[in-house]
Amino acid sequence: MSLASSVLAGERLALARLLSQIENDHPSGRAALGELFSHTGQAHLVGVTGAPGTGKSSLVNRLAHHYRHPPPGVSQRKIAIVAVDPSSPFTGGAILGDRVRMRDLSGDPGIFIRSMAARGSLGGLAPTTASMVQVFDAAGFEIIIIETVGAGQAEVDIARLAHTTLVVEAPGLGDEIQAIKAGILEIADILVVNKADRPGVENTERALRSMLELAHPTRRVFKHHGLNETIPMPERESNDDSLWVPPIVRTVATQGDGLPELVEAIADHQDHLEITGERQDRDRTRLQAELELLIQGNLVSRWRQGISDSQYQEILESLIARQISPHQAVDALLDGGQKA
Amino acid sequence: MSLASSVLAGERLALARLLSQIENDHPSGRAALGELFSHTGQAHLVGVTGAPGTGKSSLVNRLAHHYRHPPPGVSQRKIAIVAVDPSSPFTGGAILGDRVRMRDLSGDPGIFIRSMAARGSLGGLAPTTASMVQVFDAAGFEIIIIETVGAGQAEVDIARLAHTTLVVEAPGLGDEIQAIKAGILEIADILVVNKADRPGVENTERALRSMLELAHPTRRVFKHHGLNETIPMPERESNDDSLWVPPIVRTVATQGDGLPELVEAIADHQDHLEITGERQDRDRTRLQAELELLIQGNLVSRWRQGISDSQYQEILESLIARQISPHQAVDALLDGGQKA
Repeated sequence: MSLASSVLAGERLALARLLSQIENDHPSGRAALGELFSHTGQAHLVGVTGAPGTGKSSLVNRLAHHYRHPPPGVSQRKIAIVAVDPSSPFTGGAILGDRVRMRDLSGDPGIFIRSMAARGSLGGLAPTTASMVQVFDAAGFEIIIIETVGAGQAEVDIARLAHTTLVVEAPGLGDEIQAIKAGILEIADILVVNKADRPGVENTERALRSMLELAHPTRRVFKHHGLNETIPMPERESNDDSLWVPPIVRTVATQGDGLPELVEAIADHQDHLEITGERQDRDRTRLQAELELLIQGNLVSRWRQGISDSQYQEILESLIARQISPHQAVDALLDGGQKA
Repeated sequence: MSLASSVLAGERLALARLLSQIENDHPSGRAALGELFSHTGQAHLVGVTGAPGTGKSSLVNRLAHHYRHPPPGVSQRKIAIVAVDPSSPFTGGAILGDRVRMRDLSGDPGIFIRSMAARGSLGGLAPTTASMVQVFDAAGFEIIIIETVGAGQAEVDIARLAHTTLVVEAPGLGDEIQAIKAGILEIADILVVNKADRPGVENTERALRSMLELAHPTRRVFKHHGLNETIPMPERESNDDSLWVPPIVRTVATQGDGLPELVEAIADHQDHLEITGERQDRDRTRLQAELELLIQGNLVSRWRQGISDSQYQEILESLIARQISPHQAVDALLDGGQKA
């Protein structure tokens, strides 16, 4: 039985093995993913991002717990969590968090948690995350939570992988932060004010609300990091019924407060995506972005194989001696590479 | 007189025009940079990074002011500031900060400030920043401060552009942050605890000190984002005289407290780099990283020109219909592109 078939059959060990192969960019992982890909497209992908200190991880744990232990009459969902830490390119911070988490949620076969630090990804963080999500999707996980730390370009790239993006805030993280958030707000489908039992929650919510009014996109533009292309999303009128206004949900993750409301907001957004056809748009945007990042990585490695180390070193030395400029070095290297 | 000659002659308007051409990836900017490149390598590059809320911008303003108004007997330096905001891919946040800043520091011909939001950079943030720094270097600016917001991969890439990297912290930004910082700490040459008049400064400094002990690299590894290569830095023994232990400097930027000590720490690190030969190592690493990012961008645009839109769309549609996997789509597209 192939690895892909074992994953489709629900074998956890096979799943873990495939995820490792993908993280290490192993050819057999790529082959298995090729077999699995036609089984993807069923899961609902939930991105969770926000600044450090907002309690994202506790929130994600609670959210998973809630999907696993729903109120009577609501069906239980299979949950996967992919925790990505682009801010630790050096240390294995994500892995530590994983252990703490495993203790809380382990033993439930309907849940699978995978952490990834930037160091673990060879082909770039976003494409590796995309592949992992596809494996979980094919393996029948119904809700896949993609959690990232911070608010940089890597987080925005990863948030683009999701159908529903949660941006998590918390009271009392300072004023300057507010200015920074304006950018990340535009990727939010749902705003969560976690630690809502802390003082200052009204101020935080008020600030978010006024920023929402300011920032509210009548037109969303996603910067394409891969091919440096900008894809404008369809224009949406503010009186349009199909407009999604990001709700603000207060939670206290450590006590489970606000979790039913959050789950409901996610379900509402899922319905909104289905009804408006936006789900398909997002799937298309996501796959195109992934394709472009993969192409970029492949072009570089193909080129690198076509040029000798000595050619490369010679041009590099001329650059370092400032005999040629970086752009002149690029021209020299690419012409060298194309001859090969 | 060519644009490059005008920049070398110290004309501010020419400098501003060239920086815009570079930000817009204009061919004439690239040509001018080619002329200027042999004049680079003189400036000391100071990177400043840290989480939002730490008061980085005020600190950078004060630092610039200090270099422009040195104590008696110390010579005045020409200062350039490049403020990069990778966390606002959507809004022009950096530009707003620029205006506030211009008010504080304008009218001094020995200072030049340039802000850049992610949206302004076509070829990627790090290579564009590198080019701007080279222009300032050739134009005779002696200290070039590169300021970034946040702590993601983009910031790490940009920090790698500097000779001396300052990581700015502030008291009271929460406990979870501490865990996150471990990664960014490893790129710090100098740690600055700004807002040091706030309560909790001792705790922050103690936490940083114990993290420094834990994290202190006997061996630094820089992950190469561009070509997914890892370049190990030379191993350094902890008893080695040539070892640089990052000092912790307390400042209150709004009042100018601690600025003389910070300027001294930067000068010490500059000396350290000269004496140990590490300056050359860093220059080499920087130019190589820049070269690789440029190659990546060029490979993608060359490939894109070699493939027709209809070929691209056809393969994209098969991918979206899940008839082929992302990796199969890449193979199809790259083979198509190579025939052209």
